[in-house]
Amino acid sequence: MPKKAIGAVSLLYPIPIVLVGSLVGERPNYTTIGDVAIMGIRPPLVCISMNCTHYTTEGIHASGAFSINLPTAAQLPVVDYCGIVSGKTVDKGDLFTNFYGDGGAPMIEECPVNLDCLVEEEVRIEHRCIFIARVVQTYVDEQYVDASDDQTVAALPALDPVMYALDNHYYRLGAMIGTGYNEGRQFRKPGRE
Amino acid sequence: MPKKAIGAVSLLYPIPIVLVGSLVGERPNYTTIGDVAIMGIRPPLVCISMNCTHYTTEGIHASGAFSINLPTAAQLPVVDYCGIVSGKTVDKGDLFTNFYGDGGAPMIEECPVNLDCLVEEEVRIEHRCIFIARVVQTYVDEQYVDASDDQTVAALPALDPVMYALDNHYYRLGAMIGTGYNEGRQFRKPGRE
Repeated sequence: MPKKAIGAVSLLYPIPIVLVGSLVGERPNYTTIGDVAIMGIRPPLVCISMNCTHYTTEGIHASGAFSINLPTAAQLPVVDYCGIVSGKTVDKGDLFTNFYGDGGAPMIEECPVNLDCLVEEEVRIEHRCIFIARVVQTYVDEQYVDASDDQTVAALPALDPVMYALDNHYYRLGAMIGTGYNEGRQFRKPGRE
Repeated sequence: MPKKAIGAVSLLYPIPIVLVGSLVGERPNYTTIGDVAIMGIRPPLVCISMNCTHYTTEGIHASGAFSINLPTAAQLPVVDYCGIVSGKTVDKGDLFTNFYGDGGAPMIEECPVNLDCLVEEEVRIEHRCIFIARVVQTYVDEQYVDASDDQTVAALPALDPVMYALDNHYYRLGAMIGTGYNEGRQFRKPGRE
């Protein structure tokens, strides 16, 4: 397949859309980002990247704590809104029911899943502040947790997450197409027996 | 909504599934990961996280370079396979048509999008090696690039990406549900005029 070099573009897709929370001064604030990832399961690590001058970043620098709140597709209007307006001019903590865990960052009760995180490392590259953090506790709406086993959370379609891509569109989840560490078990290189 | 604390779990979802390439010795090798994210657009930054003892990690340490190759859902068997077997025992470079750019890491011609990356920073936390890298060039299959504008890539459904979640299932993309920086324009806090 002929390739075109399109320049240096971080064309990774799709990306999960989350609301990152921090206390700025004593007020809860949230911003919408897609620059977020799991960095490990054991230990439970995540990373986020934000503009160093943004309001939420200021709160993370002061507190060393942030939360990751996973919205559902039904919340898209407020999710997009939190990415448009700055906490410098709008009280975004006022848009949600806030709750707190041991980490200290505000979390959003209306989001089905919340990660309470403490920063372990920060890397700055130009105007980007990259925070690598440890999850100290994870909160899930009771309805999505197996009643007999606190470690089992509903499968992804029930959580109805929001995705985004550099085509500047939001997407919902599609069909389940396979199981991890299973689809490749029967794989053989074409031409080999 | 009552919440359950389920322990410290990096329950972020969904995550994009990619093949990370590196030269190990002089041989191209690929591994499948979901611990990957955009860390910025300008500058074009990405990050990945891998077990420090893995074969691909060895190659990144030696070369300071890696590639991110975005598969399609049709490639799921080989994608899952590359996450099951180690390059220590299987020649995974042999599964694809390899090509190279200025960064030096091997890339997969059969994947529609390839990011050629150079490591800028590494953070180690316990056994996780986290690499923050700059994209030096992005390659896209010609059929997905606008003929009149090299910067315009096809919308996400055409690229048919693979997602994964901690429910250990792979998913395809679903419906487009909105446009960035638009869905929130009309948002008003409930109860306010």
